[in-house]
Amino acid sequence: MRIALAQLRFVIGDFEGTIAKIRDIISSAEHENADLVVFAELCLAGYPARDFFEFSDFISRCRSGAEDIASSCKTISAIVGLPTVNPRAEGKNLHNSACLLQDGKISATVNKALLPTYDIFDEYRYFEPGRDFTCIKVKDIPIALTICEDLWNLEDDPMYISCPMDELIRQNPRLMINIAASPFDYSHAETRKDILFRNVKKYGIPLLYVNHVGAQTELIFDGGSLAINHDGNLAGELKYFEEEVRYFDFDPDTGQLKAADPAINLSSPVRSKAERIHDALVLGIRDYFGKQGFTTATLGLSGGIDSALVTVLASHALGPENVHVLLMPSQFSSEGSVSDSLQLIQTLGIRYDQIAIGHLFDEFRNALTPMFGDRPFNVTEENIQARIRGVLLMALSNKFGYILLNTSNKSEIAVGYGTLYGDMCGGLSVLGDVYKTEVYDLAQYINRNSEVIPENIITKPPSAELRPGQKDSDSLPDYTLLDPVLYHYIEHRRGPEEIIALGFEPGLVKRILKMVNINEYKRYQTPPILRVSPKAFGMGRRLPIVARYLS
Amino acid sequence: MRIALAQLRFVIGDFEGTIAKIRDIISSAEHENADLVVFAELCLAGYPARDFFEFSDFISRCRSGAEDIASSCKTISAIVGLPTVNPRAEGKNLHNSACLLQDGKISATVNKALLPTYDIFDEYRYFEPGRDFTCIKVKDIPIALTICEDLWNLEDDPMYISCPMDELIRQNPRLMINIAASPFDYSHAETRKDILFRNVKKYGIPLLYVNHVGAQTELIFDGGSLAINHDGNLAGELKYFEEEVRYFDFDPDTGQLKAADPAINLSSPVRSKAERIHDALVLGIRDYFGKQGFTTATLGLSGGIDSALVTVLASHALGPENVHVLLMPSQFSSEGSVSDSLQLIQTLGIRYDQIAIGHLFDEFRNALTPMFGDRPFNVTEENIQARIRGVLLMALSNKFGYILLNTSNKSEIAVGYGTLYGDMCGGLSVLGDVYKTEVYDLAQYINRNSEVIPENIITKPPSAELRPGQKDSDSLPDYTLLDPVLYHYIEHRRGPEEIIALGFEPGLVKRILKMVNINEYKRYQTPPILRVSPKAFGMGRRLPIVARYLS
Repeated sequence: MRIALAQLRFVIGDFEGTIAKIRDIISSAEHENADLVVFAELCLAGYPARDFFEFSDFISRCRSGAEDIASSCKTISAIVGLPTVNPRAEGKNLHNSACLLQDGKISATVNKALLPTYDIFDEYRYFEPGRDFTCIKVKDIPIALTICEDLWNLEDDPMYISCPMDELIRQNPRLMINIAASPFDYSHAETRKDILFRNVKKYGIPLLYVNHVGAQTELIFDGGSLAINHDGNLAGELKYFEEEVRYFDFDPDTGQLKAADPAINLSSPVRSKAERIHDALVLGIRDYFGKQGFTTATLGLSGGIDSALVTVLASHALGPENVHVLLMPSQFSSEGSVSDSLQLIQTLGIRYDQIAIGHLFDEFRNALTPMFGDRPFNVTEENIQARIRGVLLMALSNKFGYILLNTSNKSEIAVGYGTLYGDMCGGLSVLGDVYKTEVYDLAQYINRNSEVIPENIITKPPSAELRPGQKDSDSLPDYTLLDPVLYHYIEHRRGPEEIIALGFEPGLVKRILKMVNINEYKRYQTPPILRVSPKAFGMGRRLPIVARYLS
Repeated sequence: MRIALAQLRFVIGDFEGTIAKIRDIISSAEHENADLVVFAELCLAGYPARDFFEFSDFISRCRSGAEDIASSCKTISAIVGLPTVNPRAEGKNLHNSACLLQDGKISATVNKALLPTYDIFDEYRYFEPGRDFTCIKVKDIPIALTICEDLWNLEDDPMYISCPMDELIRQNPRLMINIAASPFDYSHAETRKDILFRNVKKYGIPLLYVNHVGAQTELIFDGGSLAINHDGNLAGELKYFEEEVRYFDFDPDTGQLKAADPAINLSSPVRSKAERIHDALVLGIRDYFGKQGFTTATLGLSGGIDSALVTVLASHALGPENVHVLLMPSQFSSEGSVSDSLQLIQTLGIRYDQIAIGHLFDEFRNALTPMFGDRPFNVTEENIQARIRGVLLMALSNKFGYILLNTSNKSEIAVGYGTLYGDMCGGLSVLGDVYKTEVYDLAQYINRNSEVIPENIITKPPSAELRPGQKDSDSLPDYTLLDPVLYHYIEHRRGPEEIIALGFEPGLVKRILKMVNINEYKRYQTPPILRVSPKAFGMGRRLPIVARYLS
């Protein structure tokens, strides 16, 4: 029995494109003599379709898409993911389902039982858990078909009270198939593989696993679909960050699973953390633009490391011909801010323009003098400069149809070190889930073969350059102290006492946690942030603005 | 047996303040010879505490708060809401609980079984459903204690597969008590009362119901706590939009429930839709400022109806002495834009300043000429004006510690008729859940006794005044056509075919739905919106930015 794993990129709600793509692959698979093609979780809708699931129009388009595809599954079978209507009156109106397309129709439906509802997941918002567990059959072979989280209840502290595979294994399936929508973070591939191998070890039958690939606004799906033999050995690992269709042969007599083409590498090369984040961000930018039909990015190149890094990433994602940066020095900009930027521009071969903002800044100060009188220069005037730059960048974006990329990093966003409507502008935040210390790691990765980002940009002390001689360290703890405290608080949800117990100075910890909490109002208006860590700002971290906890 | 219903305003995470407030009320209730005081759902945390529930530090502070309060419940009993730790390994780590404080300790814990996870609710994100149903006892009287949604499974299309009261009624309780966190929308009080009366009718015993009051960023809790006698007659209704503690006497022999003080009005006066929205928005503004320690609002007064209405609402919420508006006419502003604004300023007695922006606009155009060449004036130049105003308003906000109120209405936000970082700036959106046609209704309500908002502001055709002779109707369908289509799509999640079937022109419907969907990126960066409808933009409506559905 030959099975194809189809690891694909989908656009949410693009029914026409999705159906055509799936039909094409089924047609190719028939030519390869495949018996079954497996597509990812909710592939007909795109993941995450979010509140589109509340539109019955959207649900019926998913259904008719599945029926349309089924009509071409006469000799071959396919498994597709889609929302289906719960036939019972009680409970939510939908299930998150995997449908077996066979004999020209939807011949079986399996409903996801464990609905992730944490971090970026909201599945119980839409779906009723499945409670019936029946193996499907393809060519008379019983297969335990599950959906993503259904295999994830193996922890010591299980999040759910049931375990679908414990039910299904009683029906003596010969094979496990799991269709998933498992988004990337820099440590998730290991966690995922570990869980999948543990399932094979526990149940003693082979496993085929299909994931999405491609970015959906902030979520990046990294692929890495897997085939694991019954003995716990890898039968094949699909590519990361790329679409791929791979064929596997399953021998029901021996229970052996093996790659149809032994010439293909068994596993993907191991990437460093910096390389993974780089590849994920490049894919995130590329799909944000490509899926919406935009080609060109703009951003303000300040001479600092964050904007330099975003420029390089945009250049890798879109091509240097599609990056147009703006240099906007003020009277407080250092000598190097322009010359270092020009060096990077030349290395990358991108377009740029330059507008000095000193005159506009003076005009705003004059306009405000009747109201401000002789009140001293403070954060107000600093913000005005950042906002003038925001106006200019958005004008460039509006006039030429560019998307403005935001350059704030996770450390800044955490403590509110940024100007709303100023440097916090943008359609997409590229580094909003990358701590400042990780920004340096990425810059080193970019420069691993040759100096792309000028060394001077990497070594200069971080500064917003909004007043004479300003340094980040005037307002913030050193990033090597700040980032670990943020990590314990944000990634691990440790409270002040727990963090202090790890050896950090109590006053510093309280100051940092307070900065994080009182700046929730700024994060509320931050552009969507490409998620690369297990806990990113945005849809996966939801906090009240008005509150008095640790603030 | 005397029972106090304590309908209170809580600040999320303000453990010290909350504990002191609850202890004070228990102490007063003892003087009134009460046997039991009932506080609202999750009162110790504040509602919604959202991801603060992921911090074990936060959970243990709730727990020690309950223990602290319990220590003063020696002769009196109290019911408080808090998160408690799930003792079982399986399932989520927390329950949403109601604890009975008695004999100086937590003597019983009831766990919420039906966890709302839709619209603005995320409860299954944090909590495992309760599965044990046992009546509590106060003075040997069995009471069916439930939490909010637990009474809401009476619909024809029930959202849950179990019904807690069906279990509890078997234990012959004499009384139902329900503690809730039920946020306001303009139609919700009726829905809520209907559900509560239907429970009394179904189970035949009296019901006491306690809700929160006060705003928590975008959510507004309107109070309206209730006591219903076993015969289905109202025994008392607490105030709307105000804190109140009311006492009721329950006779276990006759099963009768009655107000302890018969002099107090049985029910609250019925408010019109416009009055409810007005009162909710005023409370929303007041608590946003008050809970964060801010006093003064600023906004740009354009001469249009939206900013005029926000100015009046801010003045009602904070006092006219705490509203400081900015007039920022440009070369495209109509004659009336300043004179009408000045009339309103005088009527309200608020502070104002005036800055003409023509000169700043010219300077930006000059600065951009090298890049833009002779490209024609378009939306870019319109946006620059809106953004200059944003910079000036934020400068005023920064320099004087004011909060900028956003004035965009729901119709504009729906179709993206607004400038990001321009008129979409602000700490709080006051009218973002009020359609333009409802804005007019609110203006009429404000003017019901005398002309507060100048008639000229109400009658002039809506315009952004960003180019010569511009009118909203140049870009948008008439609001009397636009708003109903938006309402069917947003509030009722009707698809294009369904809306067309209601009699709307197909081209118009498709154009409007497309505008809504492609502008999700703007709403992502919109300030938090005070929620007054059953479906507001913000936390209750979650959609992908990058998608191809109806766009």
